[in-house]
Amino acid sequence: MVELSDENTNITAALILIGNELLSGRTQDANLSHLARRLNEVGIGLVEARVIADVEDTIVATVNELRAQVDYVFTTGGIGPTHDDITAESIAKAFGVSLIQHPEARRRLIEYFETRGVEINEARLRMANTPQGAELIANQISVAPGFYIDNVFVMAGVPKVMRVMLEEVLPRLKRGRPIDNVTVVCDLPEGTVAAGLRDIQSRNPELSIGSYPGKSQNGYRVSLVVRGTAGEQVNQAARDIESLVEELGGRVERD
Amino acid sequence: MVELSDENTNITAALILIGNELLSGRTQDANLSHLARRLNEVGIGLVEARVIADVEDTIVATVNELRAQVDYVFTTGGIGPTHDDITAESIAKAFGVSLIQHPEARRRLIEYFETRGVEINEARLRMANTPQGAELIANQISVAPGFYIDNVFVMAGVPKVMRVMLEEVLPRLKRGRPIDNVTVVCDLPEGTVAAGLRDIQSRNPELSIGSYPGKSQNGYRVSLVVRGTAGEQVNQAARDIESLVEELGGRVERD
Repeated sequence: MVELSDENTNITAALILIGNELLSGRTQDANLSHLARRLNEVGIGLVEARVIADVEDTIVATVNELRAQVDYVFTTGGIGPTHDDITAESIAKAFGVSLIQHPEARRRLIEYFETRGVEINEARLRMANTPQGAELIANQISVAPGFYIDNVFVMAGVPKVMRVMLEEVLPRLKRGRPIDNVTVVCDLPEGTVAAGLRDIQSRNPELSIGSYPGKSQNGYRVSLVVRGTAGEQVNQAARDIESLVEELGGRVERD
Repeated sequence: MVELSDENTNITAALILIGNELLSGRTQDANLSHLARRLNEVGIGLVEARVIADVEDTIVATVNELRAQVDYVFTTGGIGPTHDDITAESIAKAFGVSLIQHPEARRRLIEYFETRGVEINEARLRMANTPQGAELIANQISVAPGFYIDNVFVMAGVPKVMRVMLEEVLPRLKRGRPIDNVTVVCDLPEGTVAAGLRDIQSRNPELSIGSYPGKSQNGYRVSLVVRGTAGEQVNQAARDIESLVEELGGRVERD
């Protein structure tokens, strides 16, 4: 698969999934694919994701490396009340600024706890900590906010909360041309379509064409995916793939 | 959560998930958590995972960065017959060696295709390509092998195939002390246990203690996870957490 050319996906993003539970296998990530799809829909290309441990030096180094490379960095995880939640202080360190208790975040948390009769303690108020200069990302589910500083957007790890935070963030981002996807499903093995598919890719260098094998109950079920920002060209390449499959004696269905 | 000390997890690994389909959100990864758990069971600590695109420069740079940092690098994806499968040539480039058609891989593929009456073509024989000097990783499911060169293990992306390849690889690796896990589940919110949990972590710096919120139908359901290589110390810390929860008026269940 070729790299989409710069002029089409000039807005790029990286995702940093922070959490030992992802690296121990305890927790199955559910954030990457959702974020990837939503970014694609608004024309932002996710170029890399990293899963890293709750280790300050690692978070600092990863954030600083990626924020210099892409338009937007998203992080998930590590913004709760317990000792292993160290994302806010790590981001502050990455930017070389102080960690402060954000007045508006503190106000929202205290109001939320008071309304529900929940004890206000030091651990809970840690969730108001942000790097100096950060802006809040509202959390419509459990109040404790995320935040952003420069091009780094810090969100919760709990998928439901991450999703509402992402929707808060998306309207603030520059958008590229939405990336269209067409999937042609066929019943031929990959090795049969490979040569013709390579030709179609060669004729369309600005598109990204991928082949993903699967099996159905009756045999092969291979998904041939065309992606790109030029909608008509995507559709034409998909039609070319359908013709290829039919010439090779296969059957086509649209996914 | 603290970093496990070097003497306990002196064997480290990184995983590189290669595939545009993971970064477009089309495909939900199913390999990271499985690999993480299996490595943990044999005392190898997964310290980072990266999801990258099918782009040669990216694969080369990522492999070369990580293979210098950890004991073992695993890759998944990009070893099929189609034009977007570029992992083998990228790994050859990372090591500065030629890409060759591995004679034994070629023999296995041809035998497999001949037995099944499948056309032997250039695309299918690409699956025999390996960097010069690589050794094969057997594939009990669909024959096309993975390979390893130095400390880099190249496996399929299809989860079922990745798993059989991983089982081929594990006996060849140095093993550390298995990492024990105990999970204490309680019905208290994280903000209530946070202070006491921090104390227990402080008293046990060689353990990694994490707190993962969830909700049950009746309210909170927080998992407090103790990990480490010293089994009795892990168990003692878990008992301390159980006592903490009970002192705070909560109920405990072992996961």
